[in-house]
Amino acid sequence: MDPSSIRHRIARPAFSILGFAGVALCAALASGEQAGRIIDLTHAFDSETIFWPTEEGFVLEKGTEGVGEQGYYYAANRFRTAEHGGTHIDAPIHFHAGGWTVDEIPLDRLVGAAILVDVSEICAEDPDHRVSVSDFEAWEKQHGRIPSASIVLIRTGFGRFWPDRKAYLGTDERGASAVAKLHFPGLHPDAARWLIDERQIRAVGLDTASIDHGPSKQFETHRALFAANVPAFENLAGLDELPPVGFSVVALPIKIRGGSGGPLRAIAILTDDAAGSSAGVSAPD
Amino acid sequence: MDPSSIRHRIARPAFSILGFAGVALCAALASGEQAGRIIDLTHAFDSETIFWPTEEGFVLEKGTEGVGEQGYYYAANRFRTAEHGGTHIDAPIHFHAGGWTVDEIPLDRLVGAAILVDVSEICAEDPDHRVSVSDFEAWEKQHGRIPSASIVLIRTGFGRFWPDRKAYLGTDERGASAVAKLHFPGLHPDAARWLIDERQIRAVGLDTASIDHGPSKQFETHRALFAANVPAFENLAGLDELPPVGFSVVALPIKIRGGSGGPLRAIAILTDDAAGSSAGVSAPD
Repeated sequence: MDPSSIRHRIARPAFSILGFAGVALCAALASGEQAGRIIDLTHAFDSETIFWPTEEGFVLEKGTEGVGEQGYYYAANRFRTAEHGGTHIDAPIHFHAGGWTVDEIPLDRLVGAAILVDVSEICAEDPDHRVSVSDFEAWEKQHGRIPSASIVLIRTGFGRFWPDRKAYLGTDERGASAVAKLHFPGLHPDAARWLIDERQIRAVGLDTASIDHGPSKQFETHRALFAANVPAFENLAGLDELPPVGFSVVALPIKIRGGSGGPLRAIAILTDDAAGSSAGVSAPD
Repeated sequence: MDPSSIRHRIARPAFSILGFAGVALCAALASGEQAGRIIDLTHAFDSETIFWPTEEGFVLEKGTEGVGEQGYYYAANRFRTAEHGGTHIDAPIHFHAGGWTVDEIPLDRLVGAAILVDVSEICAEDPDHRVSVSDFEAWEKQHGRIPSASIVLIRTGFGRFWPDRKAYLGTDERGASAVAKLHFPGLHPDAARWLIDERQIRAVGLDTASIDHGPSKQFETHRALFAANVPAFENLAGLDELPPVGFSVVALPIKIRGGSGGPLRAIAILTDDAAGSSAGVSAPD
């Protein structure tokens, strides 16, 4: 599929308006204290932050801190990091030649109404589970059809292991030999294609280290998503605080020119006090 | 002033709701095509990105790029940078011992209804101009009182010089000796105190390299703001696209544990088609 075609499926600016705020947010303004609550979906970066076993990780190079000869307090540091680690975005170019670099991703891919699919029970049974079309269909039976142009978040439950590398990744070994020992859930490539073709999603994110599950060798889910210029958010935090429906996401990555991804600060804003129950949600088809 | 007191002046979650979306956004939903438009307030990071003369700047360490032996395309990089350069946030601890680190700044300081004060004409005459209380009073005469808990953005017009270091900073020299040659506008410390005490602002940002003007030696504006835990956004882009009123800002920094600041991705969302004129804006007191 030509990435430009999927890009233009999302009308602008209509979806920016409806996706971001929408009637639900307006209705919520007068309705109660949950609506408007902001939830951080981001792990902090520090020396414990989980990166791929082949990466060094996040390094904060502490600089000045204290009162200098000028008489005032001052603190400033430097840091170095891989693009892909901690809570971060994969830009389409990460696995697709000619896909958007991180600075090229249109903001309306990163801002909009969102849903949460909770597959934590299945993933507790099978740490290599790949979220399938049937998982999304089961969600739709309860909560209604996934609205076109949604940001889809997947809660595998692995977020609760952070920052325990062994529990989160399946191994705490480092280096290339550790990659074959990775075990965590991901999104099945068939389900990725279904979300793109049948539900026209804006973006997808989850609480594991990769949108492909741990044992993946060919990264087919990454490749399917990025061929359609759909970005992926990885190592998200805070998904346990989200309802299935009734929130918007704002996911803003560091704007590295030509970058293949990078640290992401993602937040959710609750828009609907009915969120958390199925009350007020349209019935499935 | 005790930072905790200013923090609690901003009621939660009421301001999160009203500040972020608000009645204006709801009214705008049905009204026209400008509302909902997202504007990027962020310069991309690359080797040209402007940092303080004493800093190295942003370095992208290009990694893998191309089709590997596994048969699929893959691209990934690393980078290193100072916390304070390009479009970035100053966390209160940058100049105030015990102030919030960047990961500690509550999200409702970074998300909310905003205003733009355009002082570009004055700054074209005086590149060392410090935006004063009288500049804000002049703005209020035209556009009404700055709402409590606003994010205040200041357009000096210096953003148009980016990335020309000599025009933007007043010097393209590097190193400690260049600091005495800096010339660009900033915010007067008295005006910072007025915005804090009289207008209870959430945050402040501008299109220069520092919230204190170039010739500053004591950084009194930084110190006044950060003593009250009011963060500052520096080197903002895109301010020429903003109206004086009728927009919200979402300013999300990289979440560095213990960081004194860091790269920021900031966006504005237009909320009001009346924006750009004073129509619909309440009269000044």
